[in-house]
Order: sequence, then C-alpha cells, then structure tokens
Amino acid sequence: MYFPSWLSQLYRGLSRPIRRTTQPIWGSLSRSLVLSSQRRNPEFSSFVVRTNTCGELRSSHLGQEVTLCGWIQYRRQNTFLVLRDFHGLVQVIIPQDESAASVRKILCEAPMESVVQVSGTVISRPAGQENPKMPTGEIEIKVKTAELLNACKKLPFEIKDFMKKTEALRLQYRYLDLRSFQMQYNLRLRSQMVMKMREYLCNLHGFVDIETPTLFKRTPGGAKEFLVPSREPGKFYSLPQSPQQFKQLLMVGGLDRYFQVARCYRDEGSRPDRQPEFTQIDIEMSFVDQTGIQSLIEGLLQYSWPNDKNPVVVPFPSMTFAEALATYGTDKPDTRFGMKIIDISDVFRNTEIGFLQDALSKPHGTVKAICIPEGAKYFKRKDIESIRKFSADHFDQCSLLGKLRLECADLLETRGVVLRDPTLFSFLWVVDFPLFLPKEENPRELESAHHPFTAPHPSDIHLLYTEPKKVRSQHYDLVLNGNEIGGGSIRIHNAELQQYILATLLKEDVKLLSHMLQALDYGAPPHGGIALGLDRLICVVTGSPSIRDVIAFPKSFRGHDLMSNTPDSIPPEELKPYHIQVSWPTDSKAAKAH
Amino acid sequence: MYFPSWLSQLYRGLSRPIRRTTQPIWGSLSRSLVLSSQRRNPEFSSFVVRTNTCGELRSSHLGQEVTLCGWIQYRRQNTFLVLRDFHGLVQVIIPQDESAASVRKILCEAPMESVVQVSGTVISRPAGQENPKMPTGEIEIKVKTAELLNACKKLPFEIKDFMKKTEALRLQYRYLDLRSFQMQYNLRLRSQMVMKMREYLCNLHGFVDIETPTLFKRTPGGAKEFLVPSREPGKFYSLPQSPQQFKQLLMVGGLDRYFQVARCYRDEGSRPDRQPEFTQIDIEMSFVDQTGIQSLIEGLLQYSWPNDKNPVVVPFPSMTFAEALATYGTDKPDTRFGMKIIDISDVFRNTEIGFLQDALSKPHGTVKAICIPEGAKYFKRKDIESIRKFSADHFDQCSLLGKLRLECADLLETRGVVLRDPTLFSFLWVVDFPLFLPKEENPRELESAHHPFTAPHPSDIHLLYTEPKKVRSQHYDLVLNGNEIGGGSIRIHNAELQQYILATLLKEDVKLLSHMLQALDYGAPPHGGIALGLDRLICVVTGSPSIRDVIAFPKSFRGHDLMSNTPDSIPPEELKPYHIQVSWPTDSKAAKAH
Repeated sequence: MYFPSWLSQLYRGLSRPIRRTTQPIWGSLSRSLVLSSQRRNPEFSSFVVRTNTCGELRSSHLGQEVTLCGWIQYRRQNTFLVLRDFHGLVQVIIPQDESAASVRKILCEAPMESVVQVSGTVISRPAGQENPKMPTGEIEIKVKTAELLNACKKLPFEIKDFMKKTEALRLQYRYLDLRSFQMQYNLRLRSQMVMKMREYLCNLHGFVDIETPTLFKRTPGGAKEFLVPSREPGKFYSLPQSPQQFKQLLMVGGLDRYFQVARCYRDEGSRPDRQPEFTQIDIEMSFVDQTGIQSLIEGLLQYSWPNDKNPVVVPFPSMTFAEALATYGTDKPDTRFGMKIIDISDVFRNTEIGFLQDALSKPHGTVKAICIPEGAKYFKRKDIESIRKFSADHFDQCSLLGKLRLECADLLETRGVVLRDPTLFSFLWVVDFPLFLPKEENPRELESAHHPFTAPHPSDIHLLYTEPKKVRSQHYDLVLNGNEIGGGSIRIHNAELQQYILATLLKEDVKLLSHMLQALDYGAPPHGGIALGLDRLICVVTGSPSIRDVIAFPKSFRGHDLMSNTPDSIPPEELKPYHIQVSWPTDSKAAKAH
Repeated sequence: MYFPSWLSQLYRGLSRPIRRTTQPIWGSLSRSLVLSSQRRNPEFSSFVVRTNTCGELRSSHLGQEVTLCGWIQYRRQNTFLVLRDFHGLVQVIIPQDESAASVRKILCEAPMESVVQVSGTVISRPAGQENPKMPTGEIEIKVKTAELLNACKKLPFEIKDFMKKTEALRLQYRYLDLRSFQMQYNLRLRSQMVMKMREYLCNLHGFVDIETPTLFKRTPGGAKEFLVPSREPGKFYSLPQSPQQFKQLLMVGGLDRYFQVARCYRDEGSRPDRQPEFTQIDIEMSFVDQTGIQSLIEGLLQYSWPNDKNPVVVPFPSMTFAEALATYGTDKPDTRFGMKIIDISDVFRNTEIGFLQDALSKPHGTVKAICIPEGAKYFKRKDIESIRKFSADHFDQCSLLGKLRLECADLLETRGVVLRDPTLFSFLWVVDFPLFLPKEENPRELESAHHPFTAPHPSDIHLLYTEPKKVRSQHYDLVLNGNEIGGGSIRIHNAELQQYILATLLKEDVKLLSHMLQALDYGAPPHGGIALGLDRLICVVTGSPSIRDVIAFPKSFRGHDLMSNTPDSIPPEELKPYHIQVSWPTDSKAAKAH
C-alpha cells in the first residue's frame, strides 16, 4: 500500500532517491523520477473540487481543511481506509461517533475501487503509528463529510493482482490496468519527455511544429500501407508509414526546421511487439549535414533525458555498418558489453581440422570466435549443449554470430553475471550503410536499403553509374542498448539524380512521385533529417518488457483492440458510399456467417 | 522586397510595432507577431552550415564574416541581389573585380528562386543608400565566395504574383506557396500558440499528453467515419471523429488530467471549408464541473494568445442556448456588434396589418425586428431590395433572423461602416443546450444534440423519464466572433443512466459501446472535458479567409490533394490482402476505365 512520492519529483525535479517498497502495484518501482531540475511543480488541483491530491499531503499541511477525491484502495476493520489518486495514497480515519453515522456508512459500505470525495482536517498520526515508508505516513485525515461519487461493481479480479494476470486480460480491462503505478509512471514519463523535446526543438532551436496529412497517396512499393476508401469509385487514400515526402516538401517550401510528433501507420499483419499505428519524433532541417543532425539529436536526448537515469554522454560513438556487422554480427549492436566477434582465420591457416580447412578454402571463408569471459567457469555442460543447438538451428543465417553473442549473454546472466547493466544507456551511431540492397524476390535487381530519397555518400557518387551495389549512403541509424531507436539521412535534393535513381536504378513508377521530382527542380535546398521511434525509446528508458506498456491503448500483436473488439464488422450499407464490397474467402463460410 | 522583422519578435517577444509595407508576398502583413514576453530568441543557425539567417543582420553585425544560405529573390543590373530565407531579406553585393569572376558568374547567372550559399563580410551601405523600410536596410554583404546549391527551373508563374493565382494552382504547387510570408506567418504562429498551450496544460496544470488510437471501432450512428479494411475478411477499423471514448476511459483509468493535440477524421464528402482530417485540442478532467472547464479554457487562451493581438479578457460572457437563439437567431452569435433581434409583438398586438395579424394569431406567433443603426442613412434602395429578396429566399428557415442580421452587417460594411472590428476577439460561452433533438428522418424519435455521453443538466434529470425533449444538457460551446471554436460537456459517469439514455431513449445498439458501459461500472470518477477546433481557432486569430490557409498541406473542398493527385487508384492485387473489391457503378464505365 505504500507509494513513493514520485510524482512531485517528476515535475519538480528533486532528485531525492526513494527506497524500494513492497507494494505490488503502487510501489514496484523505487526510482526517483526526475526529468528536469528547472521544472516547477504544476498545480494539480486547479479548476477542480478537491483542494489537494491524496499523495501530496505532509506534516506541513497539518491543521488544514482539505477536500480529497479518490479511489478506495484498502479498508481495515471499519476504522480507516486508504484513499488513492494518481499522486499517491493517504490514510482516512472513519469517524466512529454516532453523529457521523451517515459518513461512516458511506465509507464502510463502499466497495473497493469506488470513487469517494471526503472533506476533513489533516492531523498527525498518533505517536508510534507513523509510517516512514509512506510519503504521507506522518499524517492522516479526520473526516467530516463524505460523498460516494461512484460505487464500483465487483471487479473481474483483485486489482492488486492485476499485473500477474495475462496480458490479454490487462488489455481487455485496460482502464483498470491504467490505474497501476507502472502505467501511470510510463505514460507520465512519456508525456514529460516529449514536452522537454518540444522545448528543446521549438523554444531553443527554432523548429516549427507542423502537422502533415495522414490521408495521402500510396508510395511506390508501399505494400505495408493501410488503405482508406474514398467516396470516388476505385480511389483510395493510403495511411503513410512516415511524413517523409511532406517533410521534404516543407524544406522546399522554405520552412527550414520542421518537427512533428507524428502518428505513422504500418500494416505488417501479426508481428510481435509491433503496432499498426506508432509515433515518431520526426525532424527535418535545411542546409545541414550528417554531423549537424547527429549533434542536434545528441543535444535533444541529453536535454529531455530523465534526471534519475544515468546521464546521456555526448557525443555518441559512431561505427560503420561494415564494422558493426564484422564486430557484433548486427547493424544494431548492444555496446553495453564486449564479447566482440574476432576473426581468427590466421590462427587456423595451417589447421588440419577438416571443417575449418573446408571453411577457409572457400572464397571469403573465415573462422570467427567470440570470447566469453570466464565462460568455462559459468557455463555448465547443458549450457554448452544449448549453445551448440542454437548454432545448428541458425547456421544458415549470416547474422548467426550476432545472435549467438546475445544468446551467450542471456545464458551468462542467468548464471548471475551482470553483463548488460539495466541502468546503463549505451548509444551508438551506425553509419555508411549501403544505398541499395539486392531485391529479395530477384537479387539481380536493386531496392533501396532505406528509402529512395536517401542521398549517396559523396565519395561514392561516381559508382552510381558503374557499380551501384557498392555505393554507400548518407543514412545513419541511432542504436540504444541494441535497439534501433532512430534513423535518418541526408536527402537527395537534385531532381536529375533523384530521377536517375528512381527510374533507372530502382525501376520504380516515377509517376507516383512526379510531384517530388518537380519540387526538387524549383529551388530545393540541401536538407536532411531523422525520425526517432518514440514508443521504442520510452520502452527502453522505462525498462518495459514491451512497447505495449508505454502506449495507453495498444493493439494486441494481431492488431486487435481487445477492450472494444476492434476491428469489427460493418453493415453492408455503410460500405456502399465507398464503392467497395467484401471479397469473402470461398473456403471460409464461417467468416461470412460471422 | 521589404520584409518586416517579425520573426525574432515572434520568438523574442518584443512588441515594437512594424509599419505597413508594400511587398506583395513578404510584406503583406504589418503586425508585430509577439506571442510571449517571456520567450527568448531561439538559435536558428545551430547545427547548420550558415552562421546567420538573412533576416537577422543589423548594424551590430558590421565587420563580421558570415555565411548565409537562401533563395535569390531579386537581382539588379548584375550589381546586387537580394537573398531570402524564412527570416527575411538581405542585400548581397555582386563583386565586379576580375579575380572574383567565378563568384560573379554564379550570382549573375543563377535563375530567380535558386538556392545559393554565400560567405562574406557585413558592411555598411554607402551613405544615403540605407533602406529604413527594410530591417536589414543599413547593411549589405560583401561576398567572397558563393556556391550554387540548387538551380531553379523556370517557375510556372512569377513567384511574386503567387497570391493572385487561383487557389487550385496554389494547392498544386503548395511547396512554392509555403515560401510566401503569409504561409510562413500562419504556420509559425500556429506552432508557437500550440507550444504555449502545451506549456500551460503540461507545465502549469499537470495535464498528461496522451496519444490515443486512430484505428478504432465504429461508433453507433458514425456514418461520417472513414473505414480502414483490415486483413481479416469483413472486419474494418474506423477513423474516429474524436478521441471521445478514449479520453473518458483515461479518466476511468485514473489519469485525472488528459490532453492531446489530436488528429480527427470526418468524411463529409464535399463541403466548403471542411477538411477530412483536422486537429483539436482535446482535454478531459476528473472531479470537475462546467465552471472548472470554462476557467481552464479561459486561462489557456489568455496564456497562449499572441501578444500583438487585442488581449483576451476573462471571464468570457455566457449565454443560454435559448437566449442566443432569441437574441441572435443562432447558437454561435457574433457578439462584436449589436443589432439584436427584438420581440415587438406587443407593439402590433392591435395592428390591422393583415400578415402581422396572421402571424400573431398562430400559437407562439411573434413579430420580431432588427434595428439597423442609421440604416436609413447607409442603405440604398437596392440594398433594401436585396434584403427583401434574401428574406424571401430563406423564409422557411427558423434561423432566418440570424442570417438576416449577418446579411445586413455585410451590407453596412460595404457602405463603409466598421461594424465588426477585425482586431477584436469576442468570446462567448453558449450553455444549456437541449440534450436531445428530434431525429431529422423521424421527428418522433430522439437523437443526441451532441453525443450520447453528455450529462443531463442536474435540474432536469427527473424530466428524462417523463419529457426527455425538455431536458437541458451540461454541454457548452465556445464561440469566437461568430465561429464555434470549441465544445464540450460534463459526461455521464453512471453506467445505469448511460444505459438508459443509449438503449431506451436513443435506441442505439448498446453492444457497440459495451466496453464504455462496463468501464463506468468499475469506479468511473465524475469527469468532463472540451475540444477546441485548432484549425478554425488559428484561422480566426490570423484573420485568414479559409482554414486551408493555416494547414500546411490541406485537401481541396472535394477532399483531394491537388499536389500529388490523392486519392488515387490502387492496383487490384493491393486490395486482395484486405478482402475488398471495388463496386464499380454500372452507369460509369469511364470511372472503371480510369
């Protein structure tokens, strides 16, 4: 039932550490949540009927007449109850004298999680009954009046067991899950961090917050775009995956510095830990190079970073794509720990071990190793066996070594070695990506490694016309603890080059992008930008297991809203204005019947 | 070519008035754009290759070496050119000496609206050649190096004539239109005003900025909702008209104070000055009454209001719906001027004029008048005639008198009377709306006047069970100069009452809202909120003729993006994953062929 005084610290910027408590919902985190030392405490009780929040009361309020509103968290022997709001918990004494019978009746009979309003006096707890673990533990409320604002029906489960329930149940009753300390913490931290980002971009660096449309045209190859039928037969809007085209057009329009906390859409069917709609901090600047964007982002994260976390150290280290692959076996290395991949081919140049000879005799054949510190000490026989099996299962994937490195790290940590400090935030720029990749369906054709507006690396432009596969790009990814949390590039601002890449190299339908090509011809400045994946970033900052824990109303991994049963059937007459009809699968009568 | 130094004032908060100039694009507004006196000037040249913006240079910069990037606005006799960026204009001297031939060539040959980068020294203009109308008019740039960053092709029209072109052309080349002073002003003012609103809500009053989904379930009677087909046959998402359900669920979830600058969607087909997607400042609070929400909004607007406008006076006056209809003939009266509607039935009680006798003999029959001050002096015979015709054309509408009042105001203003001061901002709360209206299709049935979650007026609750048509609601509208810029209500937080209104009175399909009804049963606090229409608000603040002028990439009134040709056809194979097909109209082969 104890509850840390995290909220006023989140806003006020005090950094007094808070001790770990045992309250299952409201005390499971013991951090001090401080986002900025400049922030003053907002007025949480302006414009409303309460005079104070439950969680803010201290000895300094002694003798004050207060009105509180909150949920009944706990009641004991009809003598006191604990009232909860978003700010915390406070103890309320149920009056025992006959004249207060109606107040007592309300407070004794209201079910748990009912909403009540009480007025009374802040008094000291009797000597010896203070609770030092509870921020309001020195005081209690002597109630004069009480009102039952809303009685709660019997809950489908005990609220304190909530986090133990299945995620499906938590999503179905999301409005109950939101009352948990963890969700309040995550959503409020997200709000505060975004606010600080806005202050940095808007107030300190002159960026303009501009909203761009989400009902737009399909992009070439945009197979993951949701469609929105219009009232014109056969004509559709698409929900774009990012404001990419618009932000570039804003630069052509002389807006110079744009940002948007942008809602984006991507239809990937069922993929774990992805959401059909997600949010990115979307940024674009004119007259900038790669270094400029990187410095901007380093400053942005430093400025908006919660004060109670380990600080962000700038500048972030940088690594080429090639080096990341060679050293970590992935383009998003977790650099909190070593265990790098080492080329030991030379050691085995004269080996007589058959399979190594075999490997080294192939073109580009290498032998690589990962040194696991004190592996012999920590790994048991069954660990070695599981690593061997993991390797066999993933042997055909060139990213095997990167995965093996993480697998070994997992194993080491189950043996008690702290390899990836959860309080450490290790940022990394990955740069010099290839501009093109061979198409999966047809490896003789090219597709953009990121998107077709990415500018080639200045040193490689000549290769565009001879060996396009070798061209590096001016794309950069931002990696945090092994998660890709952002990516961007310097863009092509020359219509001729853009046309050559789209039409000749990528063989795209240029008609779909004719407005972009035209815009580049009418005085487009050099420009570049980046987008940070906000959901993923907040997920890493809060240490949440899933991005669903940092989104108020997430969809399930199948794209369903389990609370409201979304998506849902639509009466045929509501499809008519959009000139569409459902193509029922012939093998699924059940679906139609439903 | 002269250009007011509006930008630094917008950010810095100086309120020095700026004189009217004659520059067609960049000087058409002469206001000082001050949003806050607390704001410090952002760094506009951090992270980029320029050292300064074109518009910021003054005598205080004399002797400094600067690098500028901008568009060529004007060139004269190959001796100087004027460079433009978002901040303003600056004069650049084209070097004439032989050693600078390459620089001269670049600056003399680049077409207008090309993008160039120049480096040089800030020097004084020769005595007598200063331009006091130009903020940078005391200095000019002696260029050392120049680089052509992007040559502009011949524009489809002269950029300085841009505003004279048709709106369709402006929308087709939106990225050129965005370079105009007016669009830069509108979008930057919008960004600044929203930022101030966020500071007020988030930093001063503890609101939490929470993003809610836009892929949601259809709402009962939500015929204006766009559909988004999912990958499950026959199952659709809907794009909601507002986050109404989510913000109420957040209150049930104990978030206490929510806001969001929310993207909303409404498919109204072709309606002038409406957009299929629009933005609202969406707010919800727990434990609040109507007065609380109104005070919050008055404070919000006062805090975020641009300093150079006439100040917002609070509290705003309030008027009942009934009084607004009786006095102004509309529920969104323009209270900047009088000319109220007066009941003069008593004067004519004993009249012998036939049509008046006739009117008064009917039940509720009245005779009403509008007194036009000095109408006899200003109105010509043809004005009277046009009023008579207007009245005849609209006679069957009960809102005739309200329209007539505005029509007469228009006429008076064409005769030179200043009736509606364009610098005046007249706010008004309209309250006590009816909770229900008779359904248009079937007047014996009821529909919600606003939405089914609106709470009834406490004094009228008993009428719900006897005369529901007479029940007033706790809905309130905010009106500014005759525009409805916001609306909200105290919500129903009692499941039983909500169920009765939905099922018994409105006869809605309760299944679609079962999650809402359930949530109200599990400890829903009393709550209420409001939404401000951001596009309309910024439109009125900036005095723009259309909301399209305050949106970066608006749709045409038919819902088209004229720049990119949106909505567009989709290849049939891209419809397959969504299990839909187009129902081509049988009488329109042309459509199919396209």
